[in-house]
Amino acid sequence: MPKNRLEAFSDGVIAIVITLLVLEIHVPANPLVTNQEMLNAILKLAPHLLAYVISFLVCAVWWVAHHALIHDLRQVDTALLWINNLFLLGLAFLPFPTALLGQHPAQPIATAFYGVVGAFTGLCFGFMRWYATVPGGLMNPELDILQLKRRIRISAVSPFLYLAGAAAGLVAPAVALLIYAAIPCYFASLNLRQSAVVSKRQTSGPNA
Amino acid sequence: MPKNRLEAFSDGVIAIVITLLVLEIHVPANPLVTNQEMLNAILKLAPHLLAYVISFLVCAVWWVAHHALIHDLRQVDTALLWINNLFLLGLAFLPFPTALLGQHPAQPIATAFYGVVGAFTGLCFGFMRWYATVPGGLMNPELDILQLKRRIRISAVSPFLYLAGAAAGLVAPAVALLIYAAIPCYFASLNLRQSAVVSKRQTSGPNA
Amino acid sequence: MPKNRLEAFSDGVIAIVITLLVLEIHVPANPLVTNQEMLNAILKLAPHLLAYVISFLVCAVWWVAHHALIHDLRQVDTALLWINNLFLLGLAFLPFPTALLGQHPAQPIATAFYGVVGAFTGLCFGFMRWYATVPGGLMNPELDILQLKRRIRISAVSPFLYLAGAAAGLVAPAVALLIYAAIPCYFASLNLRQSAVVSKRQTSGPNA
Amino acid sequence: MPKNRLEAFSDGVIAIVITLLVLEIHVPANPLVTNQEMLNAILKLAPHLLAYVISFLVCAVWWVAHHALIHDLRQVDTALLWINNLFLLGLAFLPFPTALLGQHPAQPIATAFYGVVGAFTGLCFGFMRWYATVPGGLMNPELDILQLKRRIRISAVSPFLYLAGAAAGLVAPAVALLIYAAIPCYFASLNLRQSAVVSKRQTSGPNA
Repeated sequence: MPKNRLEAFSDGVIAIVITLLVLEIHVPANPLVTNQEMLNAILKLAPHLLAYVISFLVCAVWWVAHHALIHDLRQVDTALLWINNLFLLGLAFLPFPTALLGQHPAQPIATAFYGVVGAFTGLCFGFMRWYATVPGGLMNPELDILQLKRRIRISAVSPFLYLAGAAAGLVAPAVALLIYAAIPCYFASLNLRQSAVVSKRQTSGPNA
Repeated sequence: MPKNRLEAFSDGVIAIVITLLVLEIHVPANPLVTNQEMLNAILKLAPHLLAYVISFLVCAVWWVAHHALIHDLRQVDTALLWINNLFLLGLAFLPFPTALLGQHPAQPIATAFYGVVGAFTGLCFGFMRWYATVPGGLMNPELDILQLKRRIRISAVSPFLYLAGAAAGLVAPAVALLIYAAIPCYFASLNLRQSAVVSKRQTSGPNA
Repeated sequence: MPKNRLEAFSDGVIAIVITLLVLEIHVPANPLVTNQEMLNAILKLAPHLLAYVISFLVCAVWWVAHHALIHDLRQVDTALLWINNLFLLGLAFLPFPTALLGQHPAQPIATAFYGVVGAFTGLCFGFMRWYATVPGGLMNPELDILQLKRRIRISAVSPFLYLAGAAAGLVAPAVALLIYAAIPCYFASLNLRQSAVVSKRQTSGPNA
Repeated sequence: MPKNRLEAFSDGVIAIVITLLVLEIHVPANPLVTNQEMLNAILKLAPHLLAYVISFLVCAVWWVAHHALIHDLRQVDTALLWINNLFLLGLAFLPFPTALLGQHPAQPIATAFYGVVGAFTGLCFGFMRWYATVPGGLMNPELDILQLKRRIRISAVSPFLYLAGAAAGLVAPAVALLIYAAIPCYFASLNLRQSAVVSKRQTSGPNA
């Protein structure tokens, strides 16, 4: 399997997940007439909207991270393909914990469940990156091995962050929501800073 | 990230949003037997059908505008990528305000909500165009800067139109529906006229 | 807009529509225990299954026809782009009349409604083909004009077939179902025969 | 139709099906407050989660198998296109039997129904592979005919496995679930072993 097909399939799944998230937000069906009642109905959806925004950002971060990983691959093997399928299994499941979080934002188990699913997805991704780098030997040989190992460490952080969120959820669901919102923001800002560094290096360094 | 991946992902999200809109139109479930009852049931769905058509055109206009913007880019940077993700966050949310509008077409808050979401999406797109042109310096350098600035001004109009629709919705929901229907029609007709001009210029001018 | 983007977007929409159709078939929710009750529940879904198969074939036929049309284009202009968007507006709407047909297979208005939507979609496609061939002048100039005109005539038949189905639906819904099932089968068999002819011609004729 | 379009369309359908599966898992709506009640509610969803994982793996296996088949084709003809559409008809239907299985995991008819749909899909795929290899003559002529025939035999096994699952479901639904879970695991492990063999051969053998 050439790596562009793996990438196109994964991109497709991520694009679909990111767009399906909104389907879990249900329009108030009863014929609300006054503005006050409609405002209350929309405000009652606030946890759903928050869960939507968080999961949208989570998917966007995974998309960028997944793209960067595939881009650095020299080739794809069947083991990587199936690790990637496990990663997509977790990611495609995201609309369910998102809806659970939106419906029960103050329920400890519901809040923790989101983190467990996030940790599973992060674990699969970290495992994929590790497999591609170390035992699979699938990364582009021109890449700096120290840089690659640093990226494995960054990826390894993600499941722990989600587990921390899950643990916090069991005690204080609001803290878990903050952690879940902070995780994609953290990785997005990391992504923005890294590319600023790369861009500087490219400007000053040689151009292949 | 090469710009064709950004484009493919965005195209995918827009194609999915445009196709999910119909899921918000629910089939009357009760066993209606007479033709009169079925006609009434379908006529009662008219606001949903109208909201479907409006949002479909909105998505189609965004698709064309987004394609034109990406086409004019020389390259993509990470900041643009994340502004694009915010734009997609707004666009992928569209099925919800569409369903709200279809369910409560005469409710001021519901009608205004659609305009607020449209304004957010338009703001992100205008910001993306401005960022790519001015601070990012990402546009193809062969393009006419006056033309690019004119396009920024056109994009900047869109959020104001949606906010006008939202304001109108608070007073007269029917007027807001007219404005929401007029916005994509206006941009589609602009698109048709512009390309007629470009095509004339290409016929008379030099061909690179 | 290059024609491959138009094709990719349309392919995406068609692939999503064809896959969303199944969502309109709802699983019996009440805890049915005996085999007899479950069999009855599944048999009661038979109209939904039939509507699913018909609409799936309809989408598949449109996909093949749309691909053939785009393949024959020399280039795309903005008018064609917007006619294509109207075609997709009709096609993306298909899950609703499909669900209506599945839910009310013996209801004259519900049955006729399916045909009206089919006729609209067919009309847009025929118009797109006519526009591309005659006023737009967008077809590949190497193609045989008689062959192109024949294809316009074939495309023009489709809306009339759907309207005939709609008319039949008002009187005898079962006949309409037969017509709706026959239309994609007719076009699929036409497609199979045509390509057999083309393949023969390619074998005996010169190869460019 | 060039084979890359057939592949892109099929990939799109499979990516959408695999991502729609989660929509069949519904969040408990009633305001569950205690952790015990939420845990019970999630545990009650266990059959849905199991059905999700099984069907996800089924789709992933079909995706890999479909890709391998298309990759080996020299060209595509219209008959193959329509056999592929039948295969997609079965695969796109999968969310329904998945939801049925998740909702009624101990119901013989519901369990058997999943196997019948799986057998239909497998039959279409085996037929497609056989058609492409024998009467269609569409396979790449450089491929080993013995290897191709072996693959036809492997594909022919799949519908029988699903029928065995369906038969088991009528007597012992739990056994059917085990069989349905085992089928994709079996094909995934076959895929992993085969590619290990291919990789060894490529290392030792000549490189074209």
